[in-house]
Amino acid sequence: MDSTLSLADALAAAASRTDAVLAGLLPDHDHAPARLADAMRYAALGPGKRLRPFLVIESASLFDVPLDRALRVGAALECVHAYSLAHDDLPAMDDDDLRRRRPTLHRAFDEATAILAGDALLTLAFEILADEATHPDAGHRLALTRRLAQAAGGAGMVGGQVLDIEAETRVISETSHIIRIQNMKTGALFRFACEAGALLGDGEAAPLRQYADHFGLAFQISDDLLDIESTPGALGKATQKDRAKGKATFADLLGVAGARAELSRQVDGAVAALAPYGARARLLAEAARYIATRKS
Amino acid sequence: MDSTLSLADALAAAASRTDAVLAGLLPDHDHAPARLADAMRYAALGPGKRLRPFLVIESASLFDVPLDRALRVGAALECVHAYSLAHDDLPAMDDDDLRRRRPTLHRAFDEATAILAGDALLTLAFEILADEATHPDAGHRLALTRRLAQAAGGAGMVGGQVLDIEAETRVISETSHIIRIQNMKTGALFRFACEAGALLGDGEAAPLRQYADHFGLAFQISDDLLDIESTPGALGKATQKDRAKGKATFADLLGVAGARAELSRQVDGAVAALAPYGARARLLAEAARYIATRKS
Repeated sequence: MDSTLSLADALAAAASRTDAVLAGLLPDHDHAPARLADAMRYAALGPGKRLRPFLVIESASLFDVPLDRALRVGAALECVHAYSLAHDDLPAMDDDDLRRRRPTLHRAFDEATAILAGDALLTLAFEILADEATHPDAGHRLALTRRLAQAAGGAGMVGGQVLDIEAETRVISETSHIIRIQNMKTGALFRFACEAGALLGDGEAAPLRQYADHFGLAFQISDDLLDIESTPGALGKATQKDRAKGKATFADLLGVAGARAELSRQVDGAVAALAPYGARARLLAEAARYIATRKS
Repeated sequence: MDSTLSLADALAAAASRTDAVLAGLLPDHDHAPARLADAMRYAALGPGKRLRPFLVIESASLFDVPLDRALRVGAALECVHAYSLAHDDLPAMDDDDLRRRRPTLHRAFDEATAILAGDALLTLAFEILADEATHPDAGHRLALTRRLAQAAGGAGMVGGQVLDIEAETRVISETSHIIRIQNMKTGALFRFACEAGALLGDGEAAPLRQYADHFGLAFQISDDLLDIESTPGALGKATQKDRAKGKATFADLLGVAGARAELSRQVDGAVAALAPYGARARLLAEAARYIATRKS
C-alpha cells in the first residue's frame, strides 16, 4: 500500500475493492433463486468495515502478493463472516433485530431464508478459494481451503459460538476461559486473515499470527466496552446485550478500567509483533491502535 | 466390488465402512466443545442408508480407485447430507420431530446447537476433501472441492431447498418445474457422488452423470410415493407432509399410477446409462432398481 495513505482511506479502499469483487462472485438471479441471491447480497454487501479483508490485503502486501488474489481471499473470508452473523442473529441464538443499522437478515427476509443464505455463503467461500483465479498453484489454494475450514469449523469459530452460548448459563470467573472462547469465536477468522497473506506470498506467518491474536483480543475487549458504554443509535445494533444475558465479559471480570488497560496491552502486543516487517506494516499497526479508540 | 455380492450386502458394507471413516473424521471432545461434537456425531452417524457414499464407492470402483479415497469423499458427502437434513428439519423450515426413527437434531439437542452442528458439518466436508489423504494430487482435491461447493450451494442443493419452500405457497402445474427443483435439491448431491468416482479415477463422467440424474429423479418420485402410501411407523418419519403443506409432488401432477410409470422410466434410464461400463456397473444398476421398490 501507498506509504502515505491514511488508515481511514486504506480501510475505505479495501472495503470498496472487496465489495466490487464480492458483487461479482455472489450469485445473481441467473445463478440462484432470486430470493436466495437477494438475501446473500443483503448479508454480504451490507454496511460493514470489511476489517477481515483489510487484514488479508495488508498482510499480503508485506509479501508483494498481487492485489487481486488477496481480494478474492478477503471476499471468501467476508462470506464466512457474513454467514456467521446471519446465523448468530437468528431467534434460536442471539435473536437480534438490528445489525449495522438495518434489520438483521431473518427480519429483512425470514428465518428459513436467513439459514439457507448463510449456508450458501459458507459454501461459496470454499468455491471461491478452490478456484484457480485465487492462486495459480493448486497447493496454495488447498492450503487456504484447509486453513479456512479449520478456522471456521468446530475447533474454531463455530466451536467458539457454542462455548459462548454455554457461557450464558454458566458462571465464568476466569479471564482465561473468556480468552479461550474469544480466540475461537472471533480470533480464528482474524488469524486466518493474517496467515492468508503470508500463505499467498510464501512468507513467514508466525509474527502475523501473533499480531492477529492480540488484534482479536483487542477487538473483543473493545466490543465488550462498546456494548456497555455505547448506545444503539451510535452502534447501529442493540447494546447491553451481554449484561442482559448474564454473560461474563472482560469488563465484568476486570472492571471497565481494567478492561481498558488490558485492551491497551493487547494493542501494544499487536504492534510489537509487527517489528520484523518494519515500516511496511504501518497500516496494520494503525489498525490495531484504531481498535482501541473505535466508536462502532 | 466382488461380482457376487448382493446389493443389500454391498449397501451394508458401504455404510459400515463409511461410518468407520466418518467416526475418525468427526471431532471428539478433545477437538470441539463436547455438546457440538456430540451433535455432529448424532447427525452424521445416526441410522441411514449412506446411499450417497455407496454411489461414490461404486462409481469409483469402475475406475479402480483405491477404496480409502472413495470412502473419504463419501464421508465428506455424508457430512453435507447430514447438515442439510439437520437444517431442513428446523422449526423455521420443515419443523420435523422425527428423522430415521429418532428425534431430529434440534429435538435431541436444541435449535442453536442444530444450526451450529450443521454449519460445522458443512465446513468439515471441505476440510476432508482438501486434505491430502483424499487424493495425492492437489488438482484432484481442488476439483472435488469446487464440484462439491457447486453441488451444495445456491445453484444446487441450497437453491433447490429455497425453491421447494417457495413451492408451498405457489401453484405448480408443470412437472418440468418440479424436476428443476428436485434436480437441484436432491439431484445435485447424487450427481456429485457419481461424478466424484470418475474424477477420482480420471474416468469419463458423462454416463455416470446421466445415471445420477435418472437415479435422483427416481429417488424423489419414490420419496413422494412413500410420503403418500407409507406410515410413520414404516418410514421412521412423518408422512403426508407434502399434502398437508399444499406442496405439489410428482404424484399430484401425474397421479399415483402415472408417478409409478414415470419412476419406472427413470429407473430404466438410469440402467441404460450404465451400458458403457458393462457388468462392472451391476450394483449401480441394482441400486437404481431398488429405489423403485424400497419401503423406507
